[in-house]
Amino acid sequence: MIDLREILLPNIPDDNENREISEIIESLISGIRQILDRDGINATPVLVGSTAKHTNLKNADIDIFIVFDRKFSERQMESIGLKVGHEVLPDGIERYAEHPYVSGHIQGRKIDIVPCFRIENNTRIISSVDRTPLHTEYVLSHLDEKRRNDVLALKLFMKSIGVYGSEIRVQGFSGYVCELLVINLGSFQKVLERFASQKGRLVIPDATPLAAKYRSPVVIEDPTDSTRNAAAAISLENLSIMKIESRLYLHSPSPSFFTKPQQDKPLPYMDRGTCIRIVTLPKPDLVDDVIYSQAQRARKILVEHIVEMGFHYMDSELYVGNTIEIMIETETAVLPAVTRHVGPPVDTPNSMAFIMKWKDGKSLRGPYVNDDRICVDAPSSVRDIETAISSAFSGANIGKNLDPVKGKARIIDPALTDAAYMVLGKFYSRKIRL
Amino acid sequence: MIDLREILLPNIPDDNENREISEIIESLISGIRQILDRDGINATPVLVGSTAKHTNLKNADIDIFIVFDRKFSERQMESIGLKVGHEVLPDGIERYAEHPYVSGHIQGRKIDIVPCFRIENNTRIISSVDRTPLHTEYVLSHLDEKRRNDVLALKLFMKSIGVYGSEIRVQGFSGYVCELLVINLGSFQKVLERFASQKGRLVIPDATPLAAKYRSPVVIEDPTDSTRNAAAAISLENLSIMKIESRLYLHSPSPSFFTKPQQDKPLPYMDRGTCIRIVTLPKPDLVDDVIYSQAQRARKILVEHIVEMGFHYMDSELYVGNTIEIMIETETAVLPAVTRHVGPPVDTPNSMAFIMKWKDGKSLRGPYVNDDRICVDAPSSVRDIETAISSAFSGANIGKNLDPVKGKARIIDPALTDAAYMVLGKFYSRKIRL
Repeated sequence: MIDLREILLPNIPDDNENREISEIIESLISGIRQILDRDGINATPVLVGSTAKHTNLKNADIDIFIVFDRKFSERQMESIGLKVGHEVLPDGIERYAEHPYVSGHIQGRKIDIVPCFRIENNTRIISSVDRTPLHTEYVLSHLDEKRRNDVLALKLFMKSIGVYGSEIRVQGFSGYVCELLVINLGSFQKVLERFASQKGRLVIPDATPLAAKYRSPVVIEDPTDSTRNAAAAISLENLSIMKIESRLYLHSPSPSFFTKPQQDKPLPYMDRGTCIRIVTLPKPDLVDDVIYSQAQRARKILVEHIVEMGFHYMDSELYVGNTIEIMIETETAVLPAVTRHVGPPVDTPNSMAFIMKWKDGKSLRGPYVNDDRICVDAPSSVRDIETAISSAFSGANIGKNLDPVKGKARIIDPALTDAAYMVLGKFYSRKIRL
Repeated sequence: MIDLREILLPNIPDDNENREISEIIESLISGIRQILDRDGINATPVLVGSTAKHTNLKNADIDIFIVFDRKFSERQMESIGLKVGHEVLPDGIERYAEHPYVSGHIQGRKIDIVPCFRIENNTRIISSVDRTPLHTEYVLSHLDEKRRNDVLALKLFMKSIGVYGSEIRVQGFSGYVCELLVINLGSFQKVLERFASQKGRLVIPDATPLAAKYRSPVVIEDPTDSTRNAAAAISLENLSIMKIESRLYLHSPSPSFFTKPQQDKPLPYMDRGTCIRIVTLPKPDLVDDVIYSQAQRARKILVEHIVEMGFHYMDSELYVGNTIEIMIETETAVLPAVTRHVGPPVDTPNSMAFIMKWKDGKSLRGPYVNDDRICVDAPSSVRDIETAISSAFSGANIGKNLDPVKGKARIIDPALTDAAYMVLGKFYSRKIRL
C-alpha cells in the first residue's frame, strides 16, 4: 500500500513556500486594490487557480483576475487590465488568450494578471475566463483538507503519466477537472478505480444531458454552468492512457507512478527501415495554445497530403521549441513510377469520356476494366517524398500565424545528418509509464 | 453502317466446309448407331453444340452426345460411352468434365463424343451435360436463319473483345447465352443496345425469380429449366467489358470490333518502378477448367498472403501454358523493419495481458496508446517479398491437383533475366479494344 502523504510531501509547498506565496498574493491584491481605488475603477482583484483553492503543487503559478463590473466595455476592461498588470509586474509582458493579459515574475514565481467580467452562476458568459472566479468559490466550498490531498495526488499522477493540463499541447485533464473528479467520486483511489473500470466515455454525473449534446470522450458537467462540459479538452488518447495507467497502478501501486515524467530530449536519427522526414517552421511569438493549434493543423494537412499522394503513412510527431518541428514517417521515400487511375463505374455516361481521354497511348497501360470500373495505369505525377512534402502547404491554409511563414518551411532528411532533434526524441521514446 | 453479312462471310463456313461437316456428322452418327445396335444398347447419338444449331463459326468443333436411357447406371453409361467414343475416334483421348468423354479429330476437326442421360424439360437433371440436347431443340425451334446471323455476329464480337466462352479461363458468354440473348432481344443490334444502356445486373426475363435467388452479374433463365441461370459463369468484369464495348461499337461501328483478338505473346520485364515476381508451378495433365479453377485459387491465396504480410498489392495476372505462371505486382520488394502491432482496445481486459507481454524492452517502441488502442512497434517478421511468397502456399490447400506439386513452385524475379514470359505479355498488354 502506498502512503499518499509520503508521496506528496516532497511535491507540495513546505511552510516556507506557503508563507512566501501568501506574502506575494497579499502584496499583489493590495497593490491592485490601491491602483483601482486611485483611478476610481469599479473592479476587484480575485485570486484564482490552484493557490486560491489550496490545491497547488510546488512552485505553482499565481493567477489573479481583475473582475470588472459589466458596465465597462470589453475594450475598457482590457486596456485597464493591462495597465494595472504592468504596474504591479515590472517585468510583465503582454500575452493573449481570450483577452490580453500580463504575465511576469515575482521572486522567480510566474504571475498572471488577467482581466475579466463579473458573472453569476449559470448566466451567459462573456468570455470563458470570466467563469474562473466561480470555479474557485465552488471548489473552496466543496473540498475539505483531506480531499485536497487526493486532488494533489491525482494531479501528480496525471503529470507523471503525461495527461495533465488542458492546454492544446496536452489535451489533458485540467486542475479544475481533477478537483471535480475528487469532489464527485470521493478520493484519489476512487477516481482511479472509476477510470480503471470505465468502458467507453466517462460521463459525470451519469444523467447529465450534456452526454447527448457533446461527443467528447470525457463529459463532466460544470457545477457553475450546467450547459458547459468542463472536460471538453480531453482527447480520446488521454482518456485511454488514464484508464490503462489507473489499471496498472491499482494492479501494483508504486511511487514510480508519481515521479516526474521523463523529459523530452533530442535524439539523432535511428533506422527503422522506414522513411523519416522532419519539416521545420519558424515559431511566431505567440502563446502556446495558438501555436499548437496551428502546428497541429499543419501536421494534419501534411499527413493528409502525403496519404493523398499515395505514400503509406506510419506515424508522425510534433514538437514546438524554438522552432516548430513536424516529423512524418512513411514506409518508403519513393513511390512506384505508375499509378492506377480508377475511373468512373462503367455504368455511368462519363466512363466513355474517361476512355476517350486516355486512348491513343496516353497511358502506360489500358484503359482496362477492373470489376465494374474503367481504369488506366499512368505515370505517377509525384514519386519522391521531398516533392510531395514541399507541395503540402502550398494550396492550404495552415492558420493565421503559420501561413505567412510557410514559405520558410525546411525539409530535413535526418538520416543524412548526425544532428539530434527534439521531435525525434519524442517520437522514439513514445511509451506508456510501466 | 456496318453490313454484318460482309463481316460474317470470311468467318462462317463456306459451302465446302458445310458439306465436309455434314459428311463427318453423318458418318459419326451412323457409325455410333451401328455400334449401339450391334451391342444392343438402348441409347441414341444426338448432335449438339453450334453445328447442330447452325450457329457455328468457321472450323467449329463437332459435339455428339450419346443419350442413354435412365435404366443404365452412371458407371454403365460412362464405360459404354467411352468404348463407343474410342471406336469412332481412333486418335481419341479420354478427358474428364462432369463425365469422362472421348475427344479426338477427324480431318483435322476437333470432335467430342460425350455420354449423357435422357431427360425432359424441367426435370431434375443427373448432370448438367444431360441438359444440352434440350438446348439444341430449343434453339432450333426458336431461331430462324436471319437471326442465326445475329448470333454469329454476336459470337464474333464477343470473341474479338475477349468475353466469349463459359470456361473458367474466360468466365464469359457461352454460345447458348448468345443464342438466348438474340432470341430474347431480337437482333445483334438490339443485344448491343441492351448492354450499352444496361445499369447494374443484366436480368432476362425481367420478372424471373432467379434474380432474387442468384447474385451473379448476369441472370438469364434457361427456357429448358426455369430453375437454372444459363449465364451463371459470366464475371462482373466481362459484363462490364461487354457494356463498354457495346457503347463504343454503337458510338462508332467498325469492322475492327469483329477482328481476331490480339494473341497473347511473351514479353520480357519492363520497369514500372514496382516489384514484379512470377511464381511458376508445373501444370498437371488435366482439362483446362480443372487447372484454371485451382490456378486461380493459388493466385488468390498468394495475393491474400502477400497483403496479410503487409505488402501493398497492385495487380496480378495468370497464364496457363506448358506451366502455370502467376505474376504478382507490389509497390516494393522490401517492407519496413518495423511493424505496428495494434493490440486490443484499452477497454478490454486483455489489454493488460498485451502490455505485460511487451514490456521489458521486447518491442522496438512502446507499448503506447493510439486513440483507444494499445500498440507496440515490433521488428517485422518478414521483410522481403521472396520470403513472403515462399511461405504463401505452405499452410494452404491450393487444390487437389496443384497441392501435390506446390513444392515445385519457383519464384522468378523477371528483372534479373532477359527471358520473356507469357504472363508478362498478358499483363503489360491489358487493354480494352478501342
